[in-house]
Amino acid sequence: MTAPDNTYDVIVVGAGISGLSAAKLLKESGLNPLVLEARDRVGGRTYTVQNKETKYVDLGGAYVGPTQNRIFRLAKEYGVETYKVNERENLVHHINGKTHVFKGPFPPMWNPLAVMDFNNLFRKMDEMGQEIPREAPWRAPHAEEWDKMTMEELFKKICWTRTARRFATLFVNVNVTSEPHEVSALWFLWYVKQCGGIMRIFSTTNGGQERKFVGGANQISECMARELGQQVKLQSPVCSIDQTGVLVAVETLDKQTYMGKYVIVATPPVLNLKMHFSPELPPLRNQLVTRVPMGSVIKCMMYYKENFWRKMGYCGTMVIEDEGAPIGITLDDTKPDGSVPAIMGFILARKCRKLSDLSKEERLKKICEIYAKVLGSEKALHPVHYEEKNWCEEQYSGGCYTAYYPPGILTQYGRVLREPVDRLYFAGTETATEWSGYMEGAVQAGERAAREILHAMGKIPRSEIWQGEPESLDVPALPFDVSFWETNLPSVGGFLKFMGFTAFISVATAAGLVAYQKGFLNRS
Amino acid sequence: MTAPDNTYDVIVVGAGISGLSAAKLLKESGLNPLVLEARDRVGGRTYTVQNKETKYVDLGGAYVGPTQNRIFRLAKEYGVETYKVNERENLVHHINGKTHVFKGPFPPMWNPLAVMDFNNLFRKMDEMGQEIPREAPWRAPHAEEWDKMTMEELFKKICWTRTARRFATLFVNVNVTSEPHEVSALWFLWYVKQCGGIMRIFSTTNGGQERKFVGGANQISECMARELGQQVKLQSPVCSIDQTGVLVAVETLDKQTYMGKYVIVATPPVLNLKMHFSPELPPLRNQLVTRVPMGSVIKCMMYYKENFWRKMGYCGTMVIEDEGAPIGITLDDTKPDGSVPAIMGFILARKCRKLSDLSKEERLKKICEIYAKVLGSEKALHPVHYEEKNWCEEQYSGGCYTAYYPPGILTQYGRVLREPVDRLYFAGTETATEWSGYMEGAVQAGERAAREILHAMGKIPRSEIWQGEPESLDVPALPFDVSFWETNLPSVGGFLKFMGFTAFISVATAAGLVAYQKGFLNRS
Repeated sequence: MTAPDNTYDVIVVGAGISGLSAAKLLKESGLNPLVLEARDRVGGRTYTVQNKETKYVDLGGAYVGPTQNRIFRLAKEYGVETYKVNERENLVHHINGKTHVFKGPFPPMWNPLAVMDFNNLFRKMDEMGQEIPREAPWRAPHAEEWDKMTMEELFKKICWTRTARRFATLFVNVNVTSEPHEVSALWFLWYVKQCGGIMRIFSTTNGGQERKFVGGANQISECMARELGQQVKLQSPVCSIDQTGVLVAVETLDKQTYMGKYVIVATPPVLNLKMHFSPELPPLRNQLVTRVPMGSVIKCMMYYKENFWRKMGYCGTMVIEDEGAPIGITLDDTKPDGSVPAIMGFILARKCRKLSDLSKEERLKKICEIYAKVLGSEKALHPVHYEEKNWCEEQYSGGCYTAYYPPGILTQYGRVLREPVDRLYFAGTETATEWSGYMEGAVQAGERAAREILHAMGKIPRSEIWQGEPESLDVPALPFDVSFWETNLPSVGGFLKFMGFTAFISVATAAGLVAYQKGFLNRS
Repeated sequence: MTAPDNTYDVIVVGAGISGLSAAKLLKESGLNPLVLEARDRVGGRTYTVQNKETKYVDLGGAYVGPTQNRIFRLAKEYGVETYKVNERENLVHHINGKTHVFKGPFPPMWNPLAVMDFNNLFRKMDEMGQEIPREAPWRAPHAEEWDKMTMEELFKKICWTRTARRFATLFVNVNVTSEPHEVSALWFLWYVKQCGGIMRIFSTTNGGQERKFVGGANQISECMARELGQQVKLQSPVCSIDQTGVLVAVETLDKQTYMGKYVIVATPPVLNLKMHFSPELPPLRNQLVTRVPMGSVIKCMMYYKENFWRKMGYCGTMVIEDEGAPIGITLDDTKPDGSVPAIMGFILARKCRKLSDLSKEERLKKICEIYAKVLGSEKALHPVHYEEKNWCEEQYSGGCYTAYYPPGILTQYGRVLREPVDRLYFAGTETATEWSGYMEGAVQAGERAAREILHAMGKIPRSEIWQGEPESLDVPALPFDVSFWETNLPSVGGFLKFMGFTAFISVATAAGLVAYQKGFLNRS
């Protein structure tokens, strides 16, 4: 069965950024890794398509920004340059059927109570994040309490205004492509925290969406794969991993068997299920991988003859709060030299599931209509080209951007996420502790898993498994103006108290809460 | 690749009760089915072990009761008899370190407020269930609202007393081997409803736990498999299903290819992931199967020299509310002739995950200690034998008893649960509409999927796909004394109102709720 030339030091399952980063590091350490990839391409959840209409377009992961130093290090090594996403002109916020222009990461609120509420919510979320350990959120002092709650419940507890709660929903939709009632509060607070907080995760300038790669994000994977050469095999979906022998036997659907001293599984956790394990996985891992589904998103790129929005004074960023709108958020996707004018928009979570049944043409039409409405220009109705990618249909991703944790799972199963199973190690951005869910997390996780094996082989001490990363000289991180959240603005509750309405408000709110809590039970 | 003798009318994936029921019906209809089973045995989540200490023991699904008419029909056909689980003597309820005896399905409460609260909770749950369609819970009038809530949230809304809320948690643990904060309220209310309501699902006498099969539950599957003979292949885990050709090609890990006109996948939904599909599944199905994890349970059988509990006046049923106790509920598991005295106990949900790391001996010890405490007899400390099965470790079950729906999934994805994908049809107890999660549901689902294919082949009209089942003559269902829930007992809220405390209570409760709602935010 096993020819000697089918034997490797480490077999890596998955040629996304995480698996390739692992293999790259192992090869540079003098080992002989092999990467097995199910698809006919490398890159996983990054996916760059080239054609004459777009030149190139990232239909998958694309955005990078300050503090994502590992992915910048790789890009620099390969000479892949970044450019800034256009945010020069005004951003727009569409709400209650009206469009308002603004600057900065968050749309301003007009109602003073909403301003306080909104400010208090985000300040509170960052504060809660501070007590959650990046590497072990299940050890947070309030881990059990917060994990039993969904973000929906947490918003109900923190927010006083419908305006803040509605924006908070969009905030969850945009960041993790799922709904507030689907995700554990502990997990979401951890997620925001390990990206550097509310401001870092949501900002374009100085945040996670500051830049894109000239030529597309997939180049990083392609460069790594080129280095690895014959050590990357495409169209090789792994269907079994057998650890009962002296070497680990890894079989692919095309009936090839590869032998390895170690294996790194660099897929989303749920895709561990595509493999049959012998012996079976331990009970908690066997169940963990069935409990962390992937988010739901369709990435949509609309191409226009000219960049009409910039001429109107809009940068291309639209924050859209409208239940009937397919798109929740957009960014300018014009090329850095001003060519190929385009707007990138996300169909997120509930809307993604709802609109999955439509045809591509129907989605195109709906998207153009909302852009025309938001930008106030019928030019939006006449695109010259459209590209989209529904990640929910991808068998070998399961969804995008990343896995989410429903309530109760992180505290019960989180501790086995990175726990090796005999000679099996786990990478993939979901196992990262900084920018998990992003390309940066993929690199961190891949390199960490590779070093776990180097350590198991006695080549490096345990203390070298986890390594920090020096800051990118090209893309330094700026601190955020702390005053933004730490203003002396009180919460709505604090404000009303200060105003001396305490007694009145307590009774009124209490009555409201009781009515709300019990109300639906009295339906006729 | 394909010999003509490898071609079948229908290939069934999974030789549990559902897959075998499907194949049996297809064969009886004159077709040529083949069942492919991953394990070296049939039966799936039913699993009967024979040895000298136990004679036979059901380590998996075992209980059957009135209204489960399809499984009784199969049992009768094969001459498999049932016996009643012992409930002659007193049941016991262990709470706050004390043991109380009782009769009937539910332990009585002593605090009058708790009695009202408990009564109101269960009445309310059955009422809510009434508006949920068995076959389409996502179409319930309040589907979206209830699906956004966990059962934990619903209990907080309905219950006024800690006693009722605590018992409600055990009720969820026992019925669906998961936690109230993990499951969608819509889904759990549907689950209880499609079993016939609170009383039917939880009762031993006249309920879901009334009987067991003499000789073990696995006989049903074994008898069906015997009839199918060479048409059942064991140790044949399916790793790919290819629908791109004229026939569907089904490949197993041992590199065999079977061709079928149709395929029935009769596994838990999440185990669809063990197969690589070509073409890929549609987006919603691709995501659904990653969103419905299996529950967590260890089934534990403790064997004693004599049936000491019956001599003490206890039937063997223990309802145990004690966070430190491994076991939540027990039933007598002595053989019907009085031989092999034993107690069956479940380690459920959070406790299952916590105790999975212990050794078998450590679990045995902890279980004996709680039995000794609850029964007040040191005889419980001296078992003669112990059997257990942790279903979380089973690669080809993923957990037991059944799949659960986290919040938000049933309304977004439920509609594709039974939706065929080209020539692929879906069985498994999770796709049933009566006693889904039970052996009965497995039969309903298997036979329905088989008839869907008969209909697709033009052999039966659409109206015959779904069929009712005449009531078993041997095990008739008795109505429940409706007065139990429909007493004129008010809810706690109603009672206090009646007592004229309205004003006082509104303010007091409201203050409490506000403190509770906002309290944790003011932690220092």
